[in-house]
Amino acid sequence: MDRIRRNERLAAMTRILSESPNRIHTLGTFCERFGAAKSTLSEDIDILRGVFSQFGLGQLDTVTGAAGGVRFRPIPSPEEAQRTVRELAQMLASPGRVLPGGFIYMADILAMPDVVERMGAIIASQFYRAEPNFVLTMETKGIPIAMMTARALGVPMVIVRRDSKVYEGPAVNINYLSGSGARVETMSLSRRAVKEGQRALIVDDFMRAGGTARGMVDMMREFSVTVVGVCVMISTQEPVKKRLDGVKSLLVIEGADESSGTAVIRPAAWLAQAAERAKA
Amino acid sequence: MDRIRRNERLAAMTRILSESPNRIHTLGTFCERFGAAKSTLSEDIDILRGVFSQFGLGQLDTVTGAAGGVRFRPIPSPEEAQRTVRELAQMLASPGRVLPGGFIYMADILAMPDVVERMGAIIASQFYRAEPNFVLTMETKGIPIAMMTARALGVPMVIVRRDSKVYEGPAVNINYLSGSGARVETMSLSRRAVKEGQRALIVDDFMRAGGTARGMVDMMREFSVTVVGVCVMISTQEPVKKRLDGVKSLLVIEGADESSGTAVIRPAAWLAQAAERAKA
Repeated sequence: MDRIRRNERLAAMTRILSESPNRIHTLGTFCERFGAAKSTLSEDIDILRGVFSQFGLGQLDTVTGAAGGVRFRPIPSPEEAQRTVRELAQMLASPGRVLPGGFIYMADILAMPDVVERMGAIIASQFYRAEPNFVLTMETKGIPIAMMTARALGVPMVIVRRDSKVYEGPAVNINYLSGSGARVETMSLSRRAVKEGQRALIVDDFMRAGGTARGMVDMMREFSVTVVGVCVMISTQEPVKKRLDGVKSLLVIEGADESSGTAVIRPAAWLAQAAERAKA
Repeated sequence: MDRIRRNERLAAMTRILSESPNRIHTLGTFCERFGAAKSTLSEDIDILRGVFSQFGLGQLDTVTGAAGGVRFRPIPSPEEAQRTVRELAQMLASPGRVLPGGFIYMADILAMPDVVERMGAIIASQFYRAEPNFVLTMETKGIPIAMMTARALGVPMVIVRRDSKVYEGPAVNINYLSGSGARVETMSLSRRAVKEGQRALIVDDFMRAGGTARGMVDMMREFSVTVVGVCVMISTQEPVKKRLDGVKSLLVIEGADESSGTAVIRPAAWLAQAAERAKA
């Protein structure tokens, strides 16, 4: 094989690191793949770290110790996160999205890979330190955003079902209060989906009173799994008192005007605070 | 801003191209972002094209014309695709996955972001030429793989629901034959989800007789949408005659042994043929 030049190596390493977020690559695997010395690769990584940081393309960390190496996390800058969430708020507040009953049509936006990938990266950036083993969501609309959060965290996603399925094996079923507490519904999770002692990050698209998220927390208790956080893309301002405390949200719905079909939506306050802190 | 060196620029461009598969970036946007001349960037792109090809990291194309620019597609080499699907077959054929009734437990594998991303890239690679406007799937298990296919194609995903939802607005409901034709079931798609004249790629995780896929094709007819292809991750050998012709599959289930809990699974023949052709 021809000798690989630094600029070629940097491009290849960027691609490899980008497609495996939060995974640790040892210098050894890169040495082997590119036929370069460890000292050369250390310099490469310093260059990449600088470029990623300069252009807001994510964060490259060197992890020391026996299982050490280099790790890429697609963490947006606080300003970038704020801008992304603002754009999303504008998309969701475009006229005609409010449906009868005050519901907001979001299915199209929740299924745009680029939008959902950016949301997933923002959510993941808040939970790297909590080290979840998996991302838990309830079917259906929340799956894309949970998937992209799991991708950025480098962990699997687990889907809670509305009822048990023959192709999921023995399952644990629990009841939970949905809507404004009016209905008792069932959720089901395959016994083999998670293991005792693991750590779960709960991610969903939407929260009103928090009944579904509360149900997922209760479900995790049945599996002896620790919930390290709950994050939703969008929550309603009312009721202020949710069935679950400490839920993080990217957006807040302040109200919806059925006659004009327009919702009033704002980015959650913590995003602006993080951007302010980054400037200071 | 300091002058950006070529190796820094190449790394940044790789990251930008990687995170927006199948999108055309004009040279102008790169010129502006990096303060470099078009001729310099053309050389950069030639270097990147070579590196990606050499290390099997995807395909970089220059698109000419008024809307021209550079476009990245995460297309694996035929050998790489074959290896990936073989690994998947091994994972699915590991003991203990066969459930009562001969069903195979796949929920864990279908929710591993890295596995599903590679599957999505393989499926997408077969349909770039067909130029779908969106990827259609039916809830629930197929969503991650459809999402990652949509990501690689740079198009949105559309989810068909089992029943209409208040938060999806007016919907078209149709009936279809599920299972071995024993049951009539309903599927529902929001009226605003797709537009007349668009082109759909149908992607799902599993096919036995093809009733669900057939239903999705019928649904697209209701919307005057052209179906450019149907692709599933895994299909059963029996029945040989499906309710739909021309379905592409990555894997085939030849049988399942309930007593040992082991399934017999093989990669579809077209993958080996493509790898053979690439060698020749």
